[in-house]
Amino acid sequence: MANAEIIAIGSELLTPQRIDTNSLTITEQLNAIGVEVHRKQVIGDDRARLTEAIREALNRVDIVILSGGLGPTEDDVTRDAAAAALGRSLVHSLEQEAILQARFDRLRRKMAENNRRQTYLVEGAEAVPNGNGTAPGQFIQAGEKILILLPGPPRELKPMVINEIIPRLKPLLPKEVIKVRSFRITGMGESDLDALIAPIYSRYENPSTTVLAGVGDLWVHLRARCRTGAEADALLGEVGDPIAALLGDRVYTTDAEEPLEQVVGNLLRKHKATVATAESCTGGLIATRLTEYPGSSDFFLASFVTYSDAQKAKLLGVKGELLAQCGAVSESVAAAMAEGARSRSGATYALSTTGFSGPDGGTEQNPVGTVYIGLASEDSTKVIRLHFGSDRYRHRLLSTQFALDMLRRKLL
Amino acid sequence: MANAEIIAIGSELLTPQRIDTNSLTITEQLNAIGVEVHRKQVIGDDRARLTEAIREALNRVDIVILSGGLGPTEDDVTRDAAAAALGRSLVHSLEQEAILQARFDRLRRKMAENNRRQTYLVEGAEAVPNGNGTAPGQFIQAGEKILILLPGPPRELKPMVINEIIPRLKPLLPKEVIKVRSFRITGMGESDLDALIAPIYSRYENPSTTVLAGVGDLWVHLRARCRTGAEADALLGEVGDPIAALLGDRVYTTDAEEPLEQVVGNLLRKHKATVATAESCTGGLIATRLTEYPGSSDFFLASFVTYSDAQKAKLLGVKGELLAQCGAVSESVAAAMAEGARSRSGATYALSTTGFSGPDGGTEQNPVGTVYIGLASEDSTKVIRLHFGSDRYRHRLLSTQFALDMLRRKLL
Repeated sequence: MANAEIIAIGSELLTPQRIDTNSLTITEQLNAIGVEVHRKQVIGDDRARLTEAIREALNRVDIVILSGGLGPTEDDVTRDAAAAALGRSLVHSLEQEAILQARFDRLRRKMAENNRRQTYLVEGAEAVPNGNGTAPGQFIQAGEKILILLPGPPRELKPMVINEIIPRLKPLLPKEVIKVRSFRITGMGESDLDALIAPIYSRYENPSTTVLAGVGDLWVHLRARCRTGAEADALLGEVGDPIAALLGDRVYTTDAEEPLEQVVGNLLRKHKATVATAESCTGGLIATRLTEYPGSSDFFLASFVTYSDAQKAKLLGVKGELLAQCGAVSESVAAAMAEGARSRSGATYALSTTGFSGPDGGTEQNPVGTVYIGLASEDSTKVIRLHFGSDRYRHRLLSTQFALDMLRRKLL
Repeated sequence: MANAEIIAIGSELLTPQRIDTNSLTITEQLNAIGVEVHRKQVIGDDRARLTEAIREALNRVDIVILSGGLGPTEDDVTRDAAAAALGRSLVHSLEQEAILQARFDRLRRKMAENNRRQTYLVEGAEAVPNGNGTAPGQFIQAGEKILILLPGPPRELKPMVINEIIPRLKPLLPKEVIKVRSFRITGMGESDLDALIAPIYSRYENPSTTVLAGVGDLWVHLRARCRTGAEADALLGEVGDPIAALLGDRVYTTDAEEPLEQVVGNLLRKHKATVATAESCTGGLIATRLTEYPGSSDFFLASFVTYSDAQKAKLLGVKGELLAQCGAVSESVAAAMAEGARSRSGATYALSTTGFSGPDGGTEQNPVGTVYIGLASEDSTKVIRLHFGSDRYRHRLLSTQFALDMLRRKLL
């Protein structure tokens, strides 16, 4: 069994505002090929400290992965520190320079002089292509040890880890299999979920079980480590099948990376149905989520974000008397908004939201945190009333989550 | 000047699902009293590895803060490791046992035998009260060095850091002040920015300068450490004023925490103006951003997310001939969308976006990555054409960033 340490580089990661999340991606991918992470560190942009840290880590473990500090500026010290820790020099790569130049040409931008710093490799390093940025990664074998340099931006690092680093590491490792089975759940709380499934999973150490909570979003991960894939699959079935049966349709996907909006999009596509939204308190966030992935024009038609009574009347045809009588935050207005969006866009389904997302607002009858979510379809219009507290960010996200789940259940 | 390292302990923090956030709280509080954090680490529940890590950290810095591993079970090894690293023994505290017993009595629960582990202190440690849990913290002075043990749960740790640790540390530190001056910039690339301002900041080690890049968003942080606030202000002026002059109105705020949408919202409010959006490729993201903060109903009126030609015609009144002649991704359609949104909502300004955000789509004339951004106002309609590459996530975010910046410049 091989082990690894991860070092994130960047003074900004030592401020109270920023956190290293790359190590989660790297850990997940390493675990999947049986590599255990022993330690994670964050170090500022300091050449001497970083050099020492790399040297120490290489003494302790088989694989050391660095992220960040490969940019074009003076304070990007990772290349230098890695070379110093290995006692090697930095070598200018004509090939990398050509790749970088081509990238700038493609984007019709002029390459700045300092970008040339990114074309230096540690002696003996294999350059690792970076499809989304200017800094190549570096894969370095030094005796029994492996040192890997990756760029800091997560959208550059992640595909490189998955497509470039893991395939290079795998053949160098002893055989072991880690398999994971995941469930994503919405519409219930973390402790209710745990109370329901703990009686099953707590009897097993292998697979190990983790329950994670996001805003209106829960993950259950079962993780089996075995000598063969078949053994791991059998263990995951033994624990995962009864959990799946208990959770039923509260599980919206078994793909840990698939968000609810993608599940709903795929269901709409499958039914050749379309959707529109009429959003007040969610301010366009349902539309933003539904259009986040390529191909959303297959099912997404239109969205109306209507913040005031006047806009609700004008854009969605909500009647003035209704708004005056019931108030904008009401069951009737949520229904009228959804119906208006559906008829004006011609969509199969329309979702609506109207609520007090906070931190202020609300009435005696509908205090801050109240939201009405509507779903209009050909046969009927349904409205649910929910209450989420006065944290605006949470309120908006939970409202979109419940709206999307309402549509998902309609489509099942 | 004092410096510190933070070590989070717990094997669960080395899984792909969990992240150490305690270090953010600790860093924020340390920075406020002039203590710089040099390194953060996460280590599993392994006595030998942790002992070694504590010893190394104590050699490097003045203050080492440990979080986690103070629970009642076998795998809670922090007390043991701290004692071993200092070459001291663990001493049973009758006082701590009484406090713990009283806590269990109050909760009418029986104290488990293993909780007694939590009543052992490192020889010479001062116990730090924990109002929200069973594990006391420990504050240990060892020569010039300080070692601090804190429990892992954030709701226990945070009040302890603020109310117990900082007041104990402050009188032991040299007097020093850290002040920060920040700029947030949009509309230029990281290397262009750095080429412009490096000639100024690189002549100074104090203040230190960091340049950070998000998607279409750049931060410059100048950080001065001095013995008095006045000295720090003078240094920040010496470096910051010429940088501010060079950057001009590319700086959209000097508040590191204020995003562009908030700047635009405040400008609209100041001018008593309102805004609407007509979004195609950004799918509602401009509206989502503009409504993210409380009080956005002061200036945000409505948004139309129109994905298809038919919706552009129906909801925004874009003429069929125009769509047929120029195509939906064109200067004329962007202008017509913005004008349609402005007249149909009655807003002072309207922003529009139409483009190929990728990964597929595009024409010969307007390849994937092209976007037209429109701004309609009373006196005129302006459209800019930009090209952002075919990464959908980046494309959407950059489009909203340029659209918001276009409105900001109009409002200046």
